[in-house]
Amino acid sequence: MLDKLHKTLENGTKTEIKALLKKQHPSEIADILESLPQNMRDKLWKQKSLKQGKILPYLSDAVRGELMQDMPPAKIAGIIQGMETDDAVDVLQDLSDELVEKVLQAMELQQYRRLRQVLFYPENSAGGLMNIDILTVRIEMTLKMVLHYLRRLNKLPEKTDVLMVVDSNHHYRGVLLITDLLTNASKLTVEELISTDIEAIPAHLPAHEVALLFEQRDLLSAPVVDKQGILVGRITIDDVVDVIRAEADHHLMGKAGLDEEDDMFAPVLTTTRNRALWLGINLATAFLAAYVIGLFEETLEKVVALAVLMPIVASMGGIAGSQTLTIVIRGMAIGQITEINTPFLLRKELAVSLLNGIMWSFIVAIIAMLWFDSITLGLIIGTALMINLFCAALAGVLIPVLLSRAAIDPALAGGVVLTTVTDIIGFAAFLGLATVFLKQI
Amino acid sequence: MLDKLHKTLENGTKTEIKALLKKQHPSEIADILESLPQNMRDKLWKQKSLKQGKILPYLSDAVRGELMQDMPPAKIAGIIQGMETDDAVDVLQDLSDELVEKVLQAMELQQYRRLRQVLFYPENSAGGLMNIDILTVRIEMTLKMVLHYLRRLNKLPEKTDVLMVVDSNHHYRGVLLITDLLTNASKLTVEELISTDIEAIPAHLPAHEVALLFEQRDLLSAPVVDKQGILVGRITIDDVVDVIRAEADHHLMGKAGLDEEDDMFAPVLTTTRNRALWLGINLATAFLAAYVIGLFEETLEKVVALAVLMPIVASMGGIAGSQTLTIVIRGMAIGQITEINTPFLLRKELAVSLLNGIMWSFIVAIIAMLWFDSITLGLIIGTALMINLFCAALAGVLIPVLLSRAAIDPALAGGVVLTTVTDIIGFAAFLGLATVFLKQI
Repeated sequence: MLDKLHKTLENGTKTEIKALLKKQHPSEIADILESLPQNMRDKLWKQKSLKQGKILPYLSDAVRGELMQDMPPAKIAGIIQGMETDDAVDVLQDLSDELVEKVLQAMELQQYRRLRQVLFYPENSAGGLMNIDILTVRIEMTLKMVLHYLRRLNKLPEKTDVLMVVDSNHHYRGVLLITDLLTNASKLTVEELISTDIEAIPAHLPAHEVALLFEQRDLLSAPVVDKQGILVGRITIDDVVDVIRAEADHHLMGKAGLDEEDDMFAPVLTTTRNRALWLGINLATAFLAAYVIGLFEETLEKVVALAVLMPIVASMGGIAGSQTLTIVIRGMAIGQITEINTPFLLRKELAVSLLNGIMWSFIVAIIAMLWFDSITLGLIIGTALMINLFCAALAGVLIPVLLSRAAIDPALAGGVVLTTVTDIIGFAAFLGLATVFLKQI
Repeated sequence: MLDKLHKTLENGTKTEIKALLKKQHPSEIADILESLPQNMRDKLWKQKSLKQGKILPYLSDAVRGELMQDMPPAKIAGIIQGMETDDAVDVLQDLSDELVEKVLQAMELQQYRRLRQVLFYPENSAGGLMNIDILTVRIEMTLKMVLHYLRRLNKLPEKTDVLMVVDSNHHYRGVLLITDLLTNASKLTVEELISTDIEAIPAHLPAHEVALLFEQRDLLSAPVVDKQGILVGRITIDDVVDVIRAEADHHLMGKAGLDEEDDMFAPVLTTTRNRALWLGINLATAFLAAYVIGLFEETLEKVVALAVLMPIVASMGGIAGSQTLTIVIRGMAIGQITEINTPFLLRKELAVSLLNGIMWSFIVAIIAMLWFDSITLGLIIGTALMINLFCAALAGVLIPVLLSRAAIDPALAGGVVLTTVTDIIGFAAFLGLATVFLKQI
């Protein structure tokens, strides 16, 4: 699909492009914008027929920030006033603090107050995700009163599957299913039909945990309350889906030292700068490994076969360790790693590493013996590989546990630390054993 | 939270455990089961007070398969009949074909027919995800008739936000929002209020694309039609969330050669077997790299410094290449890589690699010169590093594109192929240049 669009944008006439854009859902236009090189992107964005306000909520943070940086505050304010609160807040959170203030000042007072309520909470908390356009009913109302109230509203907020039930102090009490309104006698009271299954989410709960709750309970929407138990908003699943996707991206991209909001088509210099740091960190660890190898220069000088084989020991350790690391980091992300099962998991990973170690060390030893015609060399590489696989399993479990205790994100730092460990232990074990046991082959 | 539960399970009395389980949501009990070592898991699963049928839909495929393997078919049939169709199908799809047949035969005819309808579609398609418990209304009905019909049903299916509108041939025509039923005069007809924004999803659409559609359009539910346009079911967002999570896990775990359904607490032997293959594949590529190093044994014998520095060239290539690879694989997963923008992306990645190459090669060259007191060695490692970073960018873009053309999943194979390329080019460029230009330091 995108293919066809790209072709029209490149070669089509103005009328063709306009006709094409008209047919697309705003989310699809956002997709097109994200997948365009920057100059084509800017050109498309400035097309008059484009409904910028409708498209903005669907853009990734990086692309949105880039497209909005030159807009006048009054124009941003105008666009934002037409949005749902949660979308508006999303957009504002990408702008500089200074610009946000200017935008807020250009707004109508009522809208300003609404936005302030949500902006008060951190972006990655239940409060930052919530929408404050909620329908509430009082617990003592009859269905007839509720129906009358809804009819007067004429239009209900999008994605209303339940009405929030509150008491006279606006404390959250439960929900009333819209479907129950349809199938029950109108003389019943809200209290008789209230469903209290859905627990309220505290506004300060991290977005990550909100997402876990939604997934576990198969929720479509959930009420948000402040510390006093007062209902302040509602989170709907479409916003949670964005959190889940962002988190998954964070894990995937973080492993390669990338920001999950990275714009594929950012200018070359921006991308170069973003990636340079990661390369620098890895260069430092590579030099550390080189330093360790350098300690054994004399041994290497005598037996050059060691130089040929040593990367095998290091890289196998890295591979095995990153399997364990991935399992543990994922287990931590879905909240399944606890104090009780960590020791069990560690024992299991060590056992797996021993079994795989025995098998592959044997094979590597045989090949090395045949290749370099030296039984001692075979025994040395086999032993070094077993040591490194064992340490890799140990490191794969302990590194993420220790990193997260030190409040460092294991998804970002885990991989680098792990390969540093497996490289150093791999080279040191292999070359160290060789120094002790090997005379000239 | 899990921590407390684990402690009670380990040290608590039977009554304490029972009381504890009673308070938990089935999804939480599923979480507990997944986070337990296997013997504790089996013990908990056999507790009489556990509502197995409620918990099964929340378990991961691997754990569910393990817990169900010894259940008699009649018992499975009994449990499954109480589930929603999509959950029931989910459970069935993990069992062996033979067992599925036995279970289906133990079922009531009506339920059997319903399940057959969904089992007909592949697991990873819209048809396999859908639920067939849908409420349909005819386009010519008045709201009064609809309301009367709903009231007679007494209880609507869970998560009903819209009613599906069909014509007399059961072709899908649009949806009627439940909220519109509440706010409009009952003499209006469905046709006057029908919303046709939500396009029907073809039953054969891959689950992956269904998830993209839901994300892009912020859908809560969507109708599913067969090839004739006849309405066959409905997909709700909670099932789509599972697809999104599974896909994210696939990307993350696939990179480490792990199955996304891997059970963290599977027996040691199962895990050892699952991981052995991946280690074997990587061992083969490590030997390939060793073979390349072996070609330069003579050079290495003369200048041992080369052995010390060579891992730096290879590992920096691997790091830079995997940044590019990650960006491209993710872009492909969200459908943003097309024929038109691939050449642009390739040029950009190559430019980034040149810039970072120049910078880091300079730094590495200086350090090598100082360390080994040889200007030639510095120039050689700098040049080799630039070559490898450039090839890494090239490989990072081309490998996933070529793999997916060959219908090989780049999320699984991309990383191995890439590091093979960067290792071989890294070692060959560095040692090759040294062979040509370096005399004894």
